[in-house]
Amino acid sequence: MGFFDDIAARIDATDSVVCVGLDPDRDRLPDDVREKELPRWAFNRRIIDATHEHAACYKPNAAFYEDSNGWRSLRETVEYAHGKGVPVIVDAKRGDIGNTARQYADILDYADAITVNPYLGQDSLQPFLSQKDAGVFVLCRTSNQGGRDFQNLELAGFDEYLYEHVARRASEWNENDNVGLVVGATSTDELKAVRGLVPDLPFLVPGVGAQGGDPEAAVEFGLNDDGVGLVNSTRSIIFAGENTDEWAAAAGQAAKRLKNRLNEYR
Amino acid sequence: MGFFDDIAARIDATDSVVCVGLDPDRDRLPDDVREKELPRWAFNRRIIDATHEHAACYKPNAAFYEDSNGWRSLRETVEYAHGKGVPVIVDAKRGDIGNTARQYADILDYADAITVNPYLGQDSLQPFLSQKDAGVFVLCRTSNQGGRDFQNLELAGFDEYLYEHVARRASEWNENDNVGLVVGATSTDELKAVRGLVPDLPFLVPGVGAQGGDPEAAVEFGLNDDGVGLVNSTRSIIFAGENTDEWAAAAGQAAKRLKNRLNEYR
Repeated sequence: MGFFDDIAARIDATDSVVCVGLDPDRDRLPDDVREKELPRWAFNRRIIDATHEHAACYKPNAAFYEDSNGWRSLRETVEYAHGKGVPVIVDAKRGDIGNTARQYADILDYADAITVNPYLGQDSLQPFLSQKDAGVFVLCRTSNQGGRDFQNLELAGFDEYLYEHVARRASEWNENDNVGLVVGATSTDELKAVRGLVPDLPFLVPGVGAQGGDPEAAVEFGLNDDGVGLVNSTRSIIFAGENTDEWAAAAGQAAKRLKNRLNEYR
Repeated sequence: MGFFDDIAARIDATDSVVCVGLDPDRDRLPDDVREKELPRWAFNRRIIDATHEHAACYKPNAAFYEDSNGWRSLRETVEYAHGKGVPVIVDAKRGDIGNTARQYADILDYADAITVNPYLGQDSLQPFLSQKDAGVFVLCRTSNQGGRDFQNLELAGFDEYLYEHVARRASEWNENDNVGLVVGATSTDELKAVRGLVPDLPFLVPGVGAQGGDPEAAVEFGLNDDGVGLVNSTRSIIFAGENTDEWAAAAGQAAKRLKNRLNEYR
């Protein structure tokens, strides 16, 4: 079974396309996990306990784990999510060359999928793409304001924008049926345009929570013809009960609400 | 003193523009460091001992440190290099948005400079650019074959390639005199073109060693009007004495040879 088969099965089992971001910002952790040996892992474990019934996937962002204890926390988190039957995308946005790219691909020894940056071209992504069972989400049109700086440049000779060109090229790289795209919900026009270009690719759609993107468009254009795709929310879920004692339960309720909201459009 | 002032002073002190890459590939470490508690750190320490007189800078690539002991090794390596008076660029090629980009920028709490990926646009790089004393090397034209896949796309309405547009935009972001570019020595035409566009920016030029790039072009176009810039070599230095007992001394000799070779063109 490839990654997207696993995701399709998980979407069926949970009736959910929600991807829960796991970004344990140390400035925002609850008091009752700060005392633990690995506070980020202690936080994630309780978030997973509270949200896994509504989670098609988890997505820890590597930026929140870039130190010695952080990598231990990340590994524990991935294993625990797997114990609950939930696949994990490491949101690493990596891209490097040659032997260095191969090192980064080691993340896929324990995680199920990764996000990658296309700027360095196809050969830089080959060590990820060649792992048939792993998912590879290529950054296409990101959800931030600055996403347009380069991604929306118009190309000479192609009659398309750079993000559209990336989408088409990524689709060509999909020999192992393991390629997805990251397309933000904050730019509905671009989301729709990319879906028109690559009807088969599953999207990972960030931006529906704290960033204010449109959940209806996220579902309509984020899922492929087979209904496979993921809509991510991070802070709106994991910090839904910030500064309360019931923060884990609040995360569970927030994940359930998003699931139901998205299901209105499926 | 900003990062590039430090680099200029270090170039003067060592009469060298050599940047030594520190990529302790665990498959290639010598037997006599494999037994140590932190083999990568043990390896780097001996490489630094042997090469620092010829090193304007060190450049560990983050890919080789992405686990619990790896991050400890990286931190120790940076501190040790600082003890020898050598600045350190962490070659992380990071790029992410909002609160996540700010997390990645924590690398600059201990390292002097970082490499970043421009695909996500200006706001994604602001947490790095705003640190006045830190150097920020923006990926422009990379040294791999696939570098041309997107970087060499021609833009409509600008009469320039994407990598040239990135160079011009990066130059606009240089309010704190802390921006450099990564431009590979494997594509001399592109290196020359970028130098023509941004005469002031220091370049970090990879690709002269194992990748076969041209050292003369690396010096001619890699250094700015003030002679500030760095030419990186990694495997040709640190593994120069691979499978010999005198591997550290061989690395020192390789660094010295590259210094002298590059100085022919300065």
